[in-house]
Amino acid sequence: MSYSSSDRIVAILREWIANAAPGAKLPSTRALVAEHEVSPVTVQQALRTLVAQGVIESRPGVGTFVRGIRAPKPHDFGWQTAALGAPQQRLPQLSSALRTTANDVIGLHSGYPDKSLLPERQVRAALARAARSELAVVRAPAAGLPDLQSWFAAELASDTPGGVTPPLASDVVILPGSQAGLSTLFRTLVGAGQPMLIESPSYWGAILAAAQVGVQLVPIPSGPDGPDPDEIDRAFARTGARALYAQPHFANPTGAHWSPALAERVLDIVRARGAFLIEDDWAHDFSIDEDITPIAALDDSGHVVYVRSLTKSVSPALRVAGVVARGPARERILADTQAQAMYVSGVLQAAALDVVTQPAWRTHVRGLRGQLAARRNLLVDALRTYAPTAYLAHIPRGGLNLWLRLPDGADLAAVARECEQRGVIVAPGNDWFPAEPTGQYLRLNYSGPNPGAYERAAQVLGEVLASVTD
Amino acid sequence: MSYSSSDRIVAILREWIANAAPGAKLPSTRALVAEHEVSPVTVQQALRTLVAQGVIESRPGVGTFVRGIRAPKPHDFGWQTAALGAPQQRLPQLSSALRTTANDVIGLHSGYPDKSLLPERQVRAALARAARSELAVVRAPAAGLPDLQSWFAAELASDTPGGVTPPLASDVVILPGSQAGLSTLFRTLVGAGQPMLIESPSYWGAILAAAQVGVQLVPIPSGPDGPDPDEIDRAFARTGARALYAQPHFANPTGAHWSPALAERVLDIVRARGAFLIEDDWAHDFSIDEDITPIAALDDSGHVVYVRSLTKSVSPALRVAGVVARGPARERILADTQAQAMYVSGVLQAAALDVVTQPAWRTHVRGLRGQLAARRNLLVDALRTYAPTAYLAHIPRGGLNLWLRLPDGADLAAVARECEQRGVIVAPGNDWFPAEPTGQYLRLNYSGPNPGAYERAAQVLGEVLASVTD
Repeated sequence: MSYSSSDRIVAILREWIANAAPGAKLPSTRALVAEHEVSPVTVQQALRTLVAQGVIESRPGVGTFVRGIRAPKPHDFGWQTAALGAPQQRLPQLSSALRTTANDVIGLHSGYPDKSLLPERQVRAALARAARSELAVVRAPAAGLPDLQSWFAAELASDTPGGVTPPLASDVVILPGSQAGLSTLFRTLVGAGQPMLIESPSYWGAILAAAQVGVQLVPIPSGPDGPDPDEIDRAFARTGARALYAQPHFANPTGAHWSPALAERVLDIVRARGAFLIEDDWAHDFSIDEDITPIAALDDSGHVVYVRSLTKSVSPALRVAGVVARGPARERILADTQAQAMYVSGVLQAAALDVVTQPAWRTHVRGLRGQLAARRNLLVDALRTYAPTAYLAHIPRGGLNLWLRLPDGADLAAVARECEQRGVIVAPGNDWFPAEPTGQYLRLNYSGPNPGAYERAAQVLGEVLASVTD
Repeated sequence: MSYSSSDRIVAILREWIANAAPGAKLPSTRALVAEHEVSPVTVQQALRTLVAQGVIESRPGVGTFVRGIRAPKPHDFGWQTAALGAPQQRLPQLSSALRTTANDVIGLHSGYPDKSLLPERQVRAALARAARSELAVVRAPAAGLPDLQSWFAAELASDTPGGVTPPLASDVVILPGSQAGLSTLFRTLVGAGQPMLIESPSYWGAILAAAQVGVQLVPIPSGPDGPDPDEIDRAFARTGARALYAQPHFANPTGAHWSPALAERVLDIVRARGAFLIEDDWAHDFSIDEDITPIAALDDSGHVVYVRSLTKSVSPALRVAGVVARGPARERILADTQAQAMYVSGVLQAAALDVVTQPAWRTHVRGLRGQLAARRNLLVDALRTYAPTAYLAHIPRGGLNLWLRLPDGADLAAVARECEQRGVIVAPGNDWFPAEPTGQYLRLNYSGPNPGAYERAAQVLGEVLASVTD
């Protein structure tokens, strides 16, 4: 969209119009052609643009006139309050993790890796290839591209031990991102008004999706080692819930990684309770010191419903997730996502599959591991040096976040505000609690732009903490 | 994804494995290298692939073995029935409009235009440009790309008469396709268990979305001229509903196009009733004999919530829709779509915007008009000649469908089945009725592939009708 001669005429006429009275007649096309030395086609194109912008109106055979924009009368939409009623579900405000900010601040709040951590060249090449393929102009199948279904199944199968039947491509449903996936899973496996167990703290997007569906959350306290399985078992017994949502691997925000023993124990519990474990493997491609073995790989009884997204690790523009589920649950999930989204763009599916099946993908993930390790260590060291009163219970062995506890009595909102005024954006931890927060936490993401500024960020946080706890 | 030497070894080994016993040991890497004259790297890559496919397992230091695939034990997922319970909403089966079929049949059932009617070259070029842009690797804003918001607002503003305040870019929310849009609108403007007026017959995707949300549909009979406004007013009074969903322009399936008088009358009714008109302008780019003036262009009081999708007219791969809404309704819509989808891929938004702002787009839409007219006329003429007992109440002046009434007493399912056996796929009309069908209808889409076969299709239908009404 370069600056054409028609754009120039538009700019000139907008200035003329700004000084003209509503209803004033514009100079004729002929006069404009003569005055600005352009072709009639250019003038007409400029006039069409201004009509489209609602600035002028054309009366055929009469002329073109400045549109009568009255003093903007303030509209009263109060009648909508009665029509809408109180919301059936009160949705939380959008998390600070989604804020967009200026370039000159140090952002530790985002949930998405900076583009320097993405396989950028491969993504562009894959999108270009998809643009040339048939998928650019046809509808994709409702359950997803068969090759992408196979890939998600094979990924899980590669971790499946002998004696357990690995999942098939036909157990996979492709969804437009994991947020849509969580909505669909909560709607189909739990349902409005029904209870669902969730770690506390847990991923704010899951808390948001649960609020939208109207699910009753049953919080299970979770620390650096994950939740207490006895607590899970008691909550199932007490509430009659039939599902537990969890991020067992490098949980967002705590970074907790379940031990194999805990994973086995929770699997035993959901089996005994006739319940689902909704396993959100959000950090599958963000291992640092330890690899992930999905719990779904250990289960062929349909108790684990597994969701994995490629949006964060491949590109935020490729909103594609895969759900692996077996039995009637999979049928309900497919029906719900069809009613919700019909199908996922074949271009996005093909591009994502293209990226993750290139040899360069393995190389990228290995390199990413090193970069995340370096960034994490840098931020941890800076915090220990400059903000010693903040407490890091746990150095996560994967994922993208540190979960930092502030000294008791620190005013979380004031700390976040004060940091922001000094150019450092942090995410207050309250968004991640489905119930009352059990402490004052910040979530600090170490995958944003400019890791060179981590030291400065830690200094600012240290100064702010010193000033507020004086 | 070309066929590599590693692929060749995979194929050879799969054949070997198929004839081997579970647990059998594979030849060593060295033996495979010697036998097939490939490098050790190639052999190892092939073995990794087979491990990922779950066919073999590697025991480090021991060797590689055929995986013990037991006689596939049938899994019993019966426990899920208790966990899932009866569905809260029973979703209708997927419509026949979404069926994919072989190339050698004549398909009149699809809801999506054939790719020969799409601006294919522009779509591919726009996707390629988007692949090179920053949007390929960043997250798009929650409400959509500002330029795309502006475009949807300007499109509506270009039809807004003087005296009515045109919509602003900030009144627009970009959604991932109109199906997601309808779910969001029904959830936010109506809500589970609440009544909503809908034309009968009406778009099956809307009926599906309403079922998913749990909206109680109140059907309003609608014929070739649209619904009776007195009926709408009575239904509002009787049910206390606060919303009417309608396709006022070339409705799917009937092709009905509301007169300006009817549009004004319905607008007066929703204003008087303090209600919303959800205007689904699905056919905006499919005018044939008559242009569309959206009812939303006549309203600045927030009573009309307008949805327009680019998926059908630009490309099924570009799932992008715009909703225009003002007042608190817009806030709720934005919050719901964030909880549901977070944001829409910037690549799809940029590509769609690129296509519709090229000069070639106007040319394309003009050409499309001519093609749709020719296809419609061809099918109408063929039906009149070869299937004279089928009744066409109305030749639609736009849209993609004919709505054909079969002689009373014809067995609709038998007609569809019989046509299919003779190679012609038609869509039985029942999917489009939110209540009992008022007659035996077929929806015949004239935007599918191969219009040269319309005559043959009409012959088949005529023969089938003659045989079943004998």
